[in-house]
Amino acid sequence: MNAAPPFDKIALIGFGLIGGSIARAARVQGLAKQIVATAHSAKTRARVSELGIVDAVVETNAEAVADADLVILCIPVGACGPVAQEIAGHLKPGAIVSDVGSVKGAVVRDMALHLPRAAHFVPAHPVAGTEHSGPDSGFAELFINRWCILTPPEGTDPDAVEKLRGFWAALGARVEIMTPDHHDLVLAITSHLPHLIAYTIVGTADELEGVTQSEVLKFSAGGFRDFTRIAASDPIMWRDVFLTNKDAVLEMLGTFNEDLSKLTRAIRRGDGEALFEHFARTRAIRRGIVEIGQDSAAPDFGRPHAQLGKKAE
Amino acid sequence: MNAAPPFDKIALIGFGLIGGSIARAARVQGLAKQIVATAHSAKTRARVSELGIVDAVVETNAEAVADADLVILCIPVGACGPVAQEIAGHLKPGAIVSDVGSVKGAVVRDMALHLPRAAHFVPAHPVAGTEHSGPDSGFAELFINRWCILTPPEGTDPDAVEKLRGFWAALGARVEIMTPDHHDLVLAITSHLPHLIAYTIVGTADELEGVTQSEVLKFSAGGFRDFTRIAASDPIMWRDVFLTNKDAVLEMLGTFNEDLSKLTRAIRRGDGEALFEHFARTRAIRRGIVEIGQDSAAPDFGRPHAQLGKKAE
Repeated sequence: MNAAPPFDKIALIGFGLIGGSIARAARVQGLAKQIVATAHSAKTRARVSELGIVDAVVETNAEAVADADLVILCIPVGACGPVAQEIAGHLKPGAIVSDVGSVKGAVVRDMALHLPRAAHFVPAHPVAGTEHSGPDSGFAELFINRWCILTPPEGTDPDAVEKLRGFWAALGARVEIMTPDHHDLVLAITSHLPHLIAYTIVGTADELEGVTQSEVLKFSAGGFRDFTRIAASDPIMWRDVFLTNKDAVLEMLGTFNEDLSKLTRAIRRGDGEALFEHFARTRAIRRGIVEIGQDSAAPDFGRPHAQLGKKAE
Repeated sequence: MNAAPPFDKIALIGFGLIGGSIARAARVQGLAKQIVATAHSAKTRARVSELGIVDAVVETNAEAVADADLVILCIPVGACGPVAQEIAGHLKPGAIVSDVGSVKGAVVRDMALHLPRAAHFVPAHPVAGTEHSGPDSGFAELFINRWCILTPPEGTDPDAVEKLRGFWAALGARVEIMTPDHHDLVLAITSHLPHLIAYTIVGTADELEGVTQSEVLKFSAGGFRDFTRIAASDPIMWRDVFLTNKDAVLEMLGTFNEDLSKLTRAIRRGDGEALFEHFARTRAIRRGIVEIGQDSAAPDFGRPHAQLGKKAE
């Protein structure tokens, strides 16, 4: 039985890691009769055309959203308000408008201001990614077993929410609904603060006196290299995250700083018991994450190892 | 041609991730006529016997080092001094004594006090590991393309240093020589501070008000899960690292805190330019690490992804 695709036309505005992964996965799953994409830069649009993943690449956002029944903004959160304003007059009545932004509170308020009442606004955030960006970086499997959080404003049409939930489920994601403010608090600790810390320590290592950059790179397998991965994420996306989720990030930072001071004091005083107690406790969190399938059980994230050749005989 | 093994008897004191990996790799490479191991706990010794990787498992350190021409302490750095004292009277004249500790300054001083002049003391630190520990966690490929740092005290017999260098090279490692103090400064930034930060943030996430632990686990793919890996490392090993490399760690922490304050201020003031400039700079470090082969070029450390099933037709 060949079920009809749930959407006639999906419009993707932006084609980086997330937009490109949605396009690939939606195509594999047959979720639309037509997928149309656009992107801010001519170079990206040209590359998307070459890739041949979508049915059409158009030059303007207005053109992209015309007649679309699902519009997804896959752009840095700072651009979401202006783009919502730009497309507002071109949306088909009854269209679902969504996004993929890592911040919800400020962004939802910004977008909602502009969108017409005849459109269904269902903000979304797929908690998935890699350190790569650009039109070539996406892949269809990115969202499998990852969570996608929907934050529909009060009064949103439940059918529209259900339709978007089904879309993300078809991409392999597990869907949860929460308020924008709670989303921003949760993501501040599970994503934003980790990125800030990683960006900080990688910057610290880059500017040391007494240790050369070459030494930092060579001996990075001692732990440092793990941090460099998320500190290689897209700088525009992350600038916007910190500008728009300032309060929650600063709150988490405050708690983190208190905890760091506590451990620093234990080191300064040579309090081995306090250190051991803390280090033993954090192991359980890793186990929990692996148990619920949010990370690989393989040691070292399953990083590949070369083979050890037998000694010449 | 069947070359004679470079060592007659290697004694491994301790059989965790590192000791167990040395044993497996040395066996594959045929580096000793005999490999003897011991461990502090009877349970570990029993498991090592079962594994059948080494030629003999003995109960005491004294027994292990008897007649050995290479002795390697593969134990937490806090135990190195006492064990050096314990084995001192049982070493064969001319034996090479080494370790694998992540701290050198304090540990080298501790061990050197006890070791007899007739033994060659060549401290070593293979910068490699995973978050797993115990006798089952080791594997022969762990050291391939990782660096092993030797910190021989002034006046050490160059032949002994050369012999240990050859040993580590045969395990697949690249070898570098530096002073204990410089080692401790370099590792403070490439390993110890990253672990401290990871242990801190994982602890912070564990005790939050307003965000449940279940939420932290579910949405950890936003970046947090990366930190949980190194925060799952052996608590005794890491307690000892911070107790014995206090000064260098506190120095790096000071610089890190300054840098974190700078970024915090940029967030508080909404200074997007400062954030962008910092985030763009740190990308280059990741590229450098991948280019010199110290991390995988695959996105997301090459973490595995499930396949997206085709829609039922």
